Amino acid sequence: MILRIDRLGVELPPPSTPDPAGAAAVQELMGGKFGEMSTLMNYTFQSFNFRYRQGARPFYDLIANIAAEEYGHIELVAATINTMLTGVKIDDAKDEPYKQHFLFGGKGALPADSHGKPWTGDYVHSSGDLVEDLTHNYFLETGARSGKLRVYEMCDHPAARALTGYLLVRGGVHQVAYARALELITGSDITKAFPAPRIPTDKIPECRPHLEAGLHRTLYRFTLEDYEQAKAVFKGPHPETGEELAVVDEYPEGFPWPEAPPEPDVFAPDYAPDEIAEIAARLAKEAGF
Amino acid sequence: MILRIDRLGVELPPPSTPDPAGAAAVQELMGGKFGEMSTLMNYTFQSFNFRYRQGARPFYDLIANIAAEEYGHIELVAATINTMLTGVKIDDAKDEPYKQHFLFGGKGALPADSHGKPWTGDYVHSSGDLVEDLTHNYFLETGARSGKLRVYEMCDHPAARALTGYLLVRGGVHQVAYARALELITGSDITKAFPAPRIPTDKIPECRPHLEAGLHRTLYRFTLEDYEQAKAVFKGPHPETGEELAVVDEYPEGFPWPEAPPEPDVFAPDYAPDEIAEIAARLAKEAGF
Amino acid sequence: MILRIDRLGVELPPPSTPDPAGAAAVQELMGGKFGEMSTLMNYTFQSFNFRYRQGARPFYDLIANIAAEEYGHIELVAATINTMLTGVKIDDAKDEPYKQHFLFGGKGALPADSHGKPWTGDYVHSSGDLVEDLTHNYFLETGARSGKLRVYEMCDHPAARALTGYLLVRGGVHQVAYARALELITGSDITKAFPAPRIPTDKIPECRPHLEAGLHRTLYRFTLEDYEQAKAVFKGPHPETGEELAVVDEYPEGFPWPEAPPEPDVFAPDYAPDEIAEIAARLAKEAGF
Amino acid sequence: MILRIDRLGVELPPPSTPDPAGAAAVQELMGGKFGEMSTLMNYTFQSFNFRYRQGARPFYDLIANIAAEEYGHIELVAATINTMLTGVKIDDAKDEPYKQHFLFGGKGALPADSHGKPWTGDYVHSSGDLVEDLTHNYFLETGARSGKLRVYEMCDHPAARALTGYLLVRGGVHQVAYARALELITGSDITKAFPAPRIPTDKIPECRPHLEAGLHRTLYRFTLEDYEQAKAVFKGPHPETGEELAVVDEYPEGFPWPEAPPEPDVFAPDYAPDEIAEIAARLAKEAGF
Amino acid sequence: MILRIDRLGVELPPPSTPDPAGAAAVQELMGGKFGEMSTLMNYTFQSFNFRYRQGARPFYDLIANIAAEEYGHIELVAATINTMLTGVKIDDAKDEPYKQHFLFGGKGALPADSHGKPWTGDYVHSSGDLVEDLTHNYFLETGARSGKLRVYEMCDHPAARALTGYLLVRGGVHQVAYARALELITGSDITKAFPAPRIPTDKIPECRPHLEAGLHRTLYRFTLEDYEQAKAVFKGPHPETGEELAVVDEYPEGFPWPEAPPEPDVFAPDYAPDEIAEIAARLAKEAGF
Amino acid sequence: MILRIDRLGVELPPPSTPDPAGAAAVQELMGGKFGEMSTLMNYTFQSFNFRYRQGARPFYDLIANIAAEEYGHIELVAATINTMLTGVKIDDAKDEPYKQHFLFGGKGALPADSHGKPWTGDYVHSSGDLVEDLTHNYFLETGARSGKLRVYEMCDHPAARALTGYLLVRGGVHQVAYARALELITGSDITKAFPAPRIPTDKIPECRPHLEAGLHRTLYRFTLEDYEQAKAVFKGPHPETGEELAVVDEYPEGFPWPEAPPEPDVFAPDYAPDEIAEIAARLAKEAGF
Repeated sequence: MILRIDRLGVELPPPSTPDPAGAAAVQELMGGKFGEMSTLMNYTFQSFNFRYRQGARPFYDLIANIAAEEYGHIELVAATINTMLTGVKIDDAKDEPYKQHFLFGGKGALPADSHGKPWTGDYVHSSGDLVEDLTHNYFLETGARSGKLRVYEMCDHPAARALTGYLLVRGGVHQVAYARALELITGSDITKAFPAPRIPTDKIPECRPHLEAGLHRTLYRFTLEDYEQAKAVFKGPHPETGEELAVVDEYPEGFPWPEAPPEPDVFAPDYAPDEIAEIAARLAKEAGF
Repeated sequence: MILRIDRLGVELPPPSTPDPAGAAAVQELMGGKFGEMSTLMNYTFQSFNFRYRQGARPFYDLIANIAAEEYGHIELVAATINTMLTGVKIDDAKDEPYKQHFLFGGKGALPADSHGKPWTGDYVHSSGDLVEDLTHNYFLETGARSGKLRVYEMCDHPAARALTGYLLVRGGVHQVAYARALELITGSDITKAFPAPRIPTDKIPECRPHLEAGLHRTLYRFTLEDYEQAKAVFKGPHPETGEELAVVDEYPEGFPWPEAPPEPDVFAPDYAPDEIAEIAARLAKEAGF
Repeated sequence: MILRIDRLGVELPPPSTPDPAGAAAVQELMGGKFGEMSTLMNYTFQSFNFRYRQGARPFYDLIANIAAEEYGHIELVAATINTMLTGVKIDDAKDEPYKQHFLFGGKGALPADSHGKPWTGDYVHSSGDLVEDLTHNYFLETGARSGKLRVYEMCDHPAARALTGYLLVRGGVHQVAYARALELITGSDITKAFPAPRIPTDKIPECRPHLEAGLHRTLYRFTLEDYEQAKAVFKGPHPETGEELAVVDEYPEGFPWPEAPPEPDVFAPDYAPDEIAEIAARLAKEAGF
Repeated sequence: MILRIDRLGVELPPPSTPDPAGAAAVQELMGGKFGEMSTLMNYTFQSFNFRYRQGARPFYDLIANIAAEEYGHIELVAATINTMLTGVKIDDAKDEPYKQHFLFGGKGALPADSHGKPWTGDYVHSSGDLVEDLTHNYFLETGARSGKLRVYEMCDHPAARALTGYLLVRGGVHQVAYARALELITGSDITKAFPAPRIPTDKIPECRPHLEAGLHRTLYRFTLEDYEQAKAVFKGPHPETGEELAVVDEYPEGFPWPEAPPEPDVFAPDYAPDEIAEIAARLAKEAGF
Repeated sequence: MILRIDRLGVELPPPSTPDPAGAAAVQELMGGKFGEMSTLMNYTFQSFNFRYRQGARPFYDLIANIAAEEYGHIELVAATINTMLTGVKIDDAKDEPYKQHFLFGGKGALPADSHGKPWTGDYVHSSGDLVEDLTHNYFLETGARSGKLRVYEMCDHPAARALTGYLLVRGGVHQVAYARALELITGSDITKAFPAPRIPTDKIPECRPHLEAGLHRTLYRFTLEDYEQAKAVFKGPHPETGEELAVVDEYPEGFPWPEAPPEPDVFAPDYAPDEIAEIAARLAKEAGF
Repeated sequence: MILRIDRLGVELPPPSTPDPAGAAAVQELMGGKFGEMSTLMNYTFQSFNFRYRQGARPFYDLIANIAAEEYGHIELVAATINTMLTGVKIDDAKDEPYKQHFLFGGKGALPADSHGKPWTGDYVHSSGDLVEDLTHNYFLETGARSGKLRVYEMCDHPAARALTGYLLVRGGVHQVAYARALELITGSDITKAFPAPRIPTDKIPECRPHLEAGLHRTLYRFTLEDYEQAKAVFKGPHPETGEELAVVDEYPEGFPWPEAPPEPDVFAPDYAPDEIAEIAARLAKEAGF
C-alpha cells in the first residue's frame, strides 16, 4: 500500500513561454524505454516478486524503497510536461508532430515516449535472480542518465532544466545504490565506471544546488517505518566524491505543484471551467470546507 | 510523492497447491485492459494532468486518492500470482501456455495479460475533460468488475478467491465514487445501473466478510493529510444498500505478505539462495540489525 | 452481408489547397482509439457476438444498425484525407512528420492515428454483457465527440470542417441512442450529461445545416429490411432539444465522392496514369460499357 | 455507405459439441495477418484511396465490390467462433490457452489471431499504385487460402468445416479476380500458378457443393446499382476448370444466423438473461412489434 | 554461419550538409514493412526453415544466397543514416519529429521506420510452401522498389541518392530472381509486369552507372563455396533488357565505410572521445598493432 | 557485407520424437527479449552505428565480430525448432498453444518468443556511447544466459539440449568479452560477478565437451581478414578458470544441417513435394549439376 503526498520532490517553475516541441522531448523521460515509468515499474515489480525476503532483506528493502521514490519522478515529469504545454493554442498546434497532446490528451502528459509510442510492460525486467536484476537496474539507470542528459541539452525551457537537473542527481543515487549492491554480493567494482555517461554531474548548473544540499549521496526512506535495512547496502564512499553515502530516516518536505490553469480549448477540465468551479465550490461548502 | 507501507490490504493465504493455469488467468487482472495496472495508471495520470485543481478540488482529491489505493491492488495481484506459482517445477511446466512465468520471470507476476501481451500506455485515458474522464472511469470500473467476476469463476485456488473477493468489494467502491461524481456534476443518475455486471456482490462468499466490515461503502484516505475534499463527493446513500457512503481519515492496517520461498530452479533469488542469505545476514549485522 | 453504395453520406468539397499537416490530424479520426474504425469495429463485433438475439431483439437491431452507419464514416474520413493530400508534392514533403502518407501510402488514408500508430483490435470491446457494452459505447461516443471537436479546432481546411461538422451531428445521434438504451434497461438517466463534451452542437457553424435538417434526432436504417426493432429503443425526446427521436425507414441518398485525381509522383494509380486509363477504356468498351 | 443484410452467406450448423481449442484456431482466420479482417480492410482502404477512378473504373469496381463481400466473411468467421464456444463452461476453461474468450469476451469472436494478438492496421497495404496493390492482393489471397486449408485440417468441428469449405471457394474467386486484373494490365499470366497452395479445391468434400453450384466462377455484385464495370475484368476462362467466369447482378439470398443462446456464466447478454428478455419484450410491444 | 567483410557494397559519399529530416525518411528503408530488415529477415528465415533441401536445392540456394546479400543492404542504409545525421547539433534538433535519433540513439540508425515504429517479426513470412513464399518475395521486392523510388524523390541528399540508386538496381535483381523461380515452377510469366512500379530504372541517373556495370543482371554469390545451384534458376533473359542473367562466382570487392566522426553532444562514442582513443591506442599497441 | 557458410556451428541431432511444446519454449531463445535475434541485432546495429572507429578500433572490432557469430546462433535456434517440429501432425496440434507453427509457419521457426509475440526493434539498444553500450551488452548476455539455462531445464529433447549446451558456452565467451572491454576502459571489475546466473557451466553435461575443447575461452574471427584488433581486448585470464582468453584467426569448420524432411500437411515445401523435386532435378541437370 502507499500513502500519497500532494507535493513534488523538487520546485518547478510556473508556466511561462509554451514549448510544445520541448514537451514532446520530455515525453521520452516519461514513457521511453529508459523513462521514469520504466524505472518505477521495474523496481516495483522486482519488489513485488522478490522471493526469500526474509533471507535477503537488505536488498529487498533497497529495491522497494527506490521504487517508492520513482513514483515521485513520474509525477515530476508529468508536471513538467503540463507546464510546458500550458498556453499552447490548439489552433496553432497543427504543425506539431506530437498532436496527441492536443487531440487525445488535454495538454497533459501521456504514458508514451517522444514519438508517441506507448510505454509497454515489455520494458520491465523482473527475472527473480537478484544479481541479474541488480545488473539490469544498474544498466537501466545508466541509460536513464543518458536520456536525461540529452533532454537537458535539447530543451532549454526552465521547467525541463529544473526537472533534468534534479533527476540527474537522484538517478545518480540509484545508479550508485545498485552498483554498491552488486559489489556487496559479487565483489565486482562497477563503480569505477562512474559517471556513466561520463559527464560529471557538477558540470551542470541545474544540478549544483542539489549537490550542495548533498542529495547525490542521500537515500531517503519513502515510508513511515519500513525498508530500514537498505542501510546495510547503501553505505560506504560515493564513487565520485568519496563522501559517505547515507540512508536518512525521512523524506523530502516537498514543494507545491506548479499552477496548471484551465485550457478551455481542449475542455480541460471543461469547455466552461467556471461552471465546474461553481459546482465544486458548492459541494465543498456543503461538506464543510 | 508516495510513502510505501510494506503490508497488503487484505490477507492472502500462504502458498498451497501450485496453480500455473490459474496464475495465467489472474494475469488478466494485472496487465489486461481492465486490470489493476489500468485502473492505477488511468487515475494516476488523470490526477497528474488535472487542470484547475484550485477550482475543482473535490474531484481532484477523489481521483488522486483512488489512484493511491490502486497501487495496493497491483501489489495484491502480484502477491497472488507469486503464491499460485510457488512450487511449480520448471521441468513440469513445458506444457503450460504461459511459459514466460518460468523462462523470463522468476515465477512472479509480469506486467502482461492472461495471454502474455504486455500492458501498454494505450490503456490510459486522460483527456483533461473532467466529465469525459469520469465517464471513462465509471466504464473502466465496470469492465474491471466483469473481469474480476470471471476470474473468480475460472479459478478456485484460495489465493485467487481471496483476491477477487476483496477486489470486487473495493472496485465497487470506486465504481460508486465515479458514478456519484458524475451525478453531482451533470445530474445523471447512472447509479441505477448498479450492480454492473448484475451480480449482487453479497452472493459471493469471499465478498461477504468485507461487506460485513462495511468496506463496500468506505473510501479510505491513502495519505497523511491530503485529499480530504473527496468527502464532498463520496457521500449519500450507497446505490445498492442505501447505507451512507463515508470517507474515513485512515487507511487499512494491512496484513503481512504471504511467504514467497526461494525457487532455485529459476534462480530466484539465486541458484543457491543460502549464499545470498549469508551475505545478507552479514551485511545486516554489520549495519546493526 | 452488406451491399455497398458508391456514394458518401455528406457532401465534401473538392481538393483545394493541400494540407498535409491537417490530414495527419484527421488520421486521429480514422485510426485513433476513438476514431471511426473503433466505432465501426466495436459495434460490428458486438453485433456479431450478440447472444440471445431472439430475446433481446430491439437492442441487437440498434447496435447492428449503428454499426452499418459507421462504415460510411470511415469512408468519409478516408475521402477527407485523400482530398487534403491531393496536390502535395513528395519532394516538398520531407519535413512532414507524417511521411508514410507519401512513402508507404499513395497520398491516401492509412488505418492509423495522427502519429502513424496503426489501429489495433485492442480497441474493440465486446464483452457479451449488454449493459457493459452499452456503457462502453456511450463512453466511446463521448471520447469520439471530444476528438472530433478537437480536430475541428485544429484544422480549418474546408474538407476537415465539412467532415467534422457532419460527424459531430451523427455521432451525437449514436451517443443518444446508447444512452437511451441504457436508460431503458437500467433506469439510469445518463442523458442529463449531454452534451459531452459540453459544447452545444449548434454553436458550430458546420453542424447547423445538419441540425436544421433534423439529422441530430434521426436514426437511418442502413438496411433493406432488417433492424426495424431499433424503433423500440431510439425514441422519446432528444436530451438537448426535447424533439422526438425517430428511426426512419430509409438511408441517405448520398453524394458523389470528391474527385481524387492521379498523383503520379507516388505512382497512384501509376507513374503514367494515362496508360492505365487506356487499358481500362478498352476493357470497358469490350465489355459493352 | 453500406446496407446490412441480417443473413449469412452460407449455412452454418447449430452449436453442437463445444470446441474451444478449435475456436482458437479459427481466430487465425479472423485476426491473423491473412485473416478476413485483413482481406476486408485491405480492399476497403484500397477502394477508399483509389485515385483516378474515372480513368480506371473497371479496376475500382472490382476491388470495391470484393471488399463488400469480405464484410460477409468476417461475419461468418465470427458466427463460427460463437458456435464453437457455445456451451463451454468458464469453470472448465482454465486450461485453455485462449483465456480471453472467457475473461474478456463473452464466448464470442475477438479481432485477434490464434494466439490472441490483436489485428492491426499494419496488415493493410494501400500503396496507391494499382499494379502493386493487385500484386499484393493476389499474394494476400494466396496466404489466406493457405491459412484456410490449415485450419480445415486442424479442426474437424462441423462449423469450422462448413466455414472453411465455403471460404476456400469464395477466396479462390478473389484470387482469380486479382490475377486476371494483373494479366489484363501487364500481360503476366500468374494464373498458371493455380491452385496455390496446390491442393485442388475439389478434393475437399465441404467445397464440393459450392463448386457444383458454380460459386467458384461467380462474382456477386454486393450492391444495388454500382460496381458494374467489374464485368470488364472478371471474365474469361477459370484457370483451373476452363469454365467461363461471370459477374452476376445479384447477391446471395443468404441463411439465418445459427442460434447463439445466452451464456450466463460470462453474463452474455446478462447474468439473468430473462430479465433482459422481459424488458425487450415490453419495449417491442410498446413499439408495435 | 557468416563471415563479415568490413566494407560496403557501394561507395557512399562522406558526410556533408546534415539532413535530419531526410535521415528520418531513409529509416523507412531500414525498418519499414518493406525496408531492408524485412527483405533480410524474410529470406533468412525462409532459408532456415526450408524443408526438403535435398529435393529442391536450386530454390534453396537462390533464397539463401539472396538473404546473404540483404545483410549488406541494412548495412548500407545504416551507413547512409549515420552520414546524414553527422553534424546535426542536438540543441538544434528540438523541432525534428524524429527525436529518438538524438535522445535514444547516438545519431545513428534505429531498427524502426520513418515514424519511429520499431521493425517487428510480424513482417516476416515464412510459410514453408515454396510457391507461396516465392510469391510473397516477389511482392515484397515490388513494395520495396516502390519505397526506394519514393525515398529517392523525397530526399536529394547525396548519400540518400547514392543509396537508393544502388538499392533500386540490386532490388531489381532480386525481383527478377523470384519471378523467374516462380515461372520455372508454375509456368506463370509474372516478369511481363516489369518494371513494377513502372518507372524504368535507367531513367534514374544514380542507377545508370550500376546498369552500365551490368549489376542489374548479375547475382553475386555471397559465400565461399555454397549456393551454387542458384545458377539453375537465375538464368534466361532479363525481362526488361533481354540481356542474359548470370550468377557470378564472386562477391563485390566493396568500398570503405564513409567516415563517421565522433558526436560528443550525444556521447558517441563518448563525451570526451579522445580519452577513449587514448585507451584504444594503448591497447592496440600492447597487442602489437 | 557477409559471406554465408551453409553449415552449422555445432552438431545437432536429427529429428526424433516430435516435441511441439518444447519447440514453443525454444522460441524464447529466438525472438524473446533475450533471444539470439536480440544479441544479433544489438551488436549489428552498434557496429553499424559505431562512431570514431579509427579512434576506437579494438572495441569496434570486438563488437562487429561478435555480431557475426550471433548470426550463426539464430541459425542454430531455427534448426532446433525445425527439428523438434518435424513429424508433428497438424490434425494432432489443435491443443497446442503455439498454433502458428502450423497455421502460419510451415513447422519452422518464427521471429517471435515463446508466446508468439514477434521480436521487435524495441529490443535493440544502440546509444552511441561506448561504455553504455558495453554495459548493455554485458547485461544482455546475462539475461540471455538466464534464458538458456531455463530452456535447458524445461526441455529434455536432445536437440534443445545440444543447442543450449553450445549456446551457454558461446554466450559465456561474449559475456566475458564485454566485461573485459568495460574493465579496460573504466577499470571496473565486473568479471567478479561470474558466472551470472551463478550456475557453473561445467555442471551442465551438454556444455562439457565444448569446455574440454576450450570453446569457453576462444573468440573466433568470423571474417576473412577484418576485426583483428579484437585481440587487443579479448585477452587475459578467464574469470572463472584463469585460463588465457584467445582470439583465433579462424572460424569453426561446422557441421551439416540436420535433415528437415518435407511436411506435406503444411505444404512444406509443397502439398506434393515430389513434383517440386522433379522440377528441381530437371533444372539442376540443365544447369550442369
